[in-house]
Amino acid sequence: MAKFEIKERDCLSRIGRLETPHGTIETPALLPVINPNKMLIEPDEMRKLFIVNANITNSYIVYRREKLMRMSLSEGIHSLLKFDGVIMTDSGTFQSHVYGSVDVDYLKIFKFQRDIGSDIGTILDLFTEPDDNRTTAKRKVIETVKRAKKSVVVKDKMLAACTVQGGVYEDLRARCAEEMGKIDCDIHPVGGVVPLMENQRYDELVRCIVSSKMHLPLSRPIHLFGAGHPIVFPLAVALGVDMMDSSSYAKYARDERFIFPWGTKKLSDMEEIPCNCPVCSRVDAKELKEMNKEERERNIALHNLYICFSEMKRIKLSIKEGSLWELVEEKASINPLIMDALRFLERENIKEWLERFEPVSRKSAFFYINRHSMHRPIVYRYQKRLLSVYKPSGEIIVREEVEKPYGRVYRKEWERSKTDIVIKSPFGPVPLPLDEMYPIAQSVFPKMTDKESEELAERVLNKLLEKNKVKPVEKPERGKRNLDIDR
Amino acid sequence: MAKFEIKERDCLSRIGRLETPHGTIETPALLPVINPNKMLIEPDEMRKLFIVNANITNSYIVYRREKLMRMSLSEGIHSLLKFDGVIMTDSGTFQSHVYGSVDVDYLKIFKFQRDIGSDIGTILDLFTEPDDNRTTAKRKVIETVKRAKKSVVVKDKMLAACTVQGGVYEDLRARCAEEMGKIDCDIHPVGGVVPLMENQRYDELVRCIVSSKMHLPLSRPIHLFGAGHPIVFPLAVALGVDMMDSSSYAKYARDERFIFPWGTKKLSDMEEIPCNCPVCSRVDAKELKEMNKEERERNIALHNLYICFSEMKRIKLSIKEGSLWELVEEKASINPLIMDALRFLERENIKEWLERFEPVSRKSAFFYINRHSMHRPIVYRYQKRLLSVYKPSGEIIVREEVEKPYGRVYRKEWERSKTDIVIKSPFGPVPLPLDEMYPIAQSVFPKMTDKESEELAERVLNKLLEKNKVKPVEKPERGKRNLDIDR
Repeated sequence: MAKFEIKERDCLSRIGRLETPHGTIETPALLPVINPNKMLIEPDEMRKLFIVNANITNSYIVYRREKLMRMSLSEGIHSLLKFDGVIMTDSGTFQSHVYGSVDVDYLKIFKFQRDIGSDIGTILDLFTEPDDNRTTAKRKVIETVKRAKKSVVVKDKMLAACTVQGGVYEDLRARCAEEMGKIDCDIHPVGGVVPLMENQRYDELVRCIVSSKMHLPLSRPIHLFGAGHPIVFPLAVALGVDMMDSSSYAKYARDERFIFPWGTKKLSDMEEIPCNCPVCSRVDAKELKEMNKEERERNIALHNLYICFSEMKRIKLSIKEGSLWELVEEKASINPLIMDALRFLERENIKEWLERFEPVSRKSAFFYINRHSMHRPIVYRYQKRLLSVYKPSGEIIVREEVEKPYGRVYRKEWERSKTDIVIKSPFGPVPLPLDEMYPIAQSVFPKMTDKESEELAERVLNKLLEKNKVKPVEKPERGKRNLDIDR
Repeated sequence: MAKFEIKERDCLSRIGRLETPHGTIETPALLPVINPNKMLIEPDEMRKLFIVNANITNSYIVYRREKLMRMSLSEGIHSLLKFDGVIMTDSGTFQSHVYGSVDVDYLKIFKFQRDIGSDIGTILDLFTEPDDNRTTAKRKVIETVKRAKKSVVVKDKMLAACTVQGGVYEDLRARCAEEMGKIDCDIHPVGGVVPLMENQRYDELVRCIVSSKMHLPLSRPIHLFGAGHPIVFPLAVALGVDMMDSSSYAKYARDERFIFPWGTKKLSDMEEIPCNCPVCSRVDAKELKEMNKEERERNIALHNLYICFSEMKRIKLSIKEGSLWELVEEKASINPLIMDALRFLERENIKEWLERFEPVSRKSAFFYINRHSMHRPIVYRYQKRLLSVYKPSGEIIVREEVEKPYGRVYRKEWERSKTDIVIKSPFGPVPLPLDEMYPIAQSVFPKMTDKESEELAERVLNKLLEKNKVKPVEKPERGKRNLDIDR
């Protein structure tokens, strides 16, 4: 198994280093898709501009073209792409999705990838379509697992990527993932999800990622095929995707569409391009419109790559400072369909699973973004522990929050009194001794959040009172609400 | 009065053109602050890099320095700054806030601005501090208005900026604005708000902007002094701010802080800079850290300007496509203190005022961002008109939304029936004949919004039923909820 070293974590995301024959990939990594027939931007130019040392190309396209096949067999895929960094290859599975079938044996195309010197070769798995019925999906999973087992035997030095299929059926994904986990391979792509991303069915995308990831070995990197628009990158990474490939920089450019961190715009809809990347700082919208088509496409593709790679940097920074959930929720604010995906994560079993990977503390404060913030694993953990561990000593006094940490205002009262003091916080009730626990004191909220979040906190308080059969006692209160100091 | 031509509008924002002696400013405009003592980046370089033809400098600093004063009097301020674009000058009011007082007569400094050839000169108004009591604030307003009246008489060709003061007292702001509106001047800055922005007291900032703007002539541009971080630009522009100045590019750079569209980061906290501007594409974090201090400061300042100006472009694009509220709410998602400001706008009288400036339709769809989205003026308008205009013909049938426009599913049933059909939408009930009205059909929501928004829509339905004394009749329903098609 390839060496995959994990350096830092936040949620299920990790900053890691994966060793391959042509160098080390730092994860989370975005691998731009290179079309061997038409290189809009050459891999070596990408490396210089974006410091990216890995890409992905399609071995089936190379295999099907006599000239490319011969060249890559004699000189190697690295020579064909004029690139000596890491090259991952896909197997033709995506072509089988597009055209219905592919004209090659699965072992043959896997060996071909090995023989042309691919660093990471992918098995020819069977693409489960989102509307495949259960019987079809199950059959494809069984066949995919069989192919994986036979393929990895001949992988040699090449890393083997064994894809998890199973359509939108969680149990089939789980079963496929478990079987794949037993196989001696290196990377697990989540497959069959491109149609979900193309139609922005992000809740189902998340269902596929989660039910695969839950059952895969933690020690292996997860790849997401065809990750599309960068707006979905943070969500994928937060759920444990370590590597993604994307051809959207080129596909969008062909339609004269600009990728932005917050969406997409057609060139024809813009008089000024709201961007400062080197492309957009050099040429303006008018000049782009007047360029010849080819040059325009190349420039837009470059712009799109600038955006994609700076978004990846932001994701890495968020992992390091522990603010990846904030970033995911920020993207959900921009695209309501990502909210649907976050709703899916509110299921009890998923919250429980996510909570297991939650760090004890973070470098950055907890920021309230929207109602979804109150369903983050750290909030779930706090509320669960509070209810299971905290036993009021008898009566309790319930107080409003004034400033943070709450002890600043209430500690003296608490020390003088035999009664427990519990503060009403947006996280639920906070017994005074816990007031410096992360993220209670290190949190930023608006003066009012939203009614749903307020009711959620209220419910936790009521549960606490009921469970311990206590009633809050009335005491006159001092101090006024002033949280600005902490902001 | 200077010529100010309005080209496009969204909310209270406008894209306009303001004529000055040294050229036309396209609004909304960001004027970088130039320190005449230390030009980190020369105005002419800014023009080349950012296509910015206007800036602001401080006439009081020029006046106080013997050498600068003489030079600017003999050769003009444009020669001093080596810039032949638009130069606005401030008067020393900000220095009086910082140092307690300034050592110059108000008429003298206003005439000085005229004499050095400033394009837009500012009166020496009295800075009302946020914690000034009412008596002090009132005295300052009276004196400021007096000074404005005396100053504008001598303005000659220079445009005169007459600042609205009044502290956090809405009635004083209103009174000051009304008085200023009667004076023959060209621009109205909202003054005394820098301390609010420095402490991110955005709800009070909005209170000051709104109570000023409400009472100023619509035909004149509004300026915001010291607009700070770009995260607040969209909110200011949405409330009618046409021009802003900001020195934060330089102030942040001095502390080695990078401005981003989503916040601020210290250089020392980053291993990689999540940005693709020409500066960050040329040098990386390590190289920046190893540079000499001066060069580093200059590079960070350039980066900060790249961000500020591309944010301004995004604001303009949002105005043109009618999505500025979405942008404001997106920023509020990133910074909870901007949510406090949006809460302030939910006051009935402000909603009513905002609604008056609401266009009939927009180019872009309505996107749900968070609970604040359901308090946008367009939603307020829809609900108000629905309750005042729509009279059910007798019974009504209440239906769930299936797809949009709702008529696709329900029109036949409606045509066959004598009963009105009303669809439960996130905007409140929608009687079938109104289903194609903006933004009902042109809207994007997650499958579930949030409880507060759901209850708001429910309340509007109940109001409608009560007001018209009708009860919904039960009818078996067909069709299933599937809104994905429109996404």
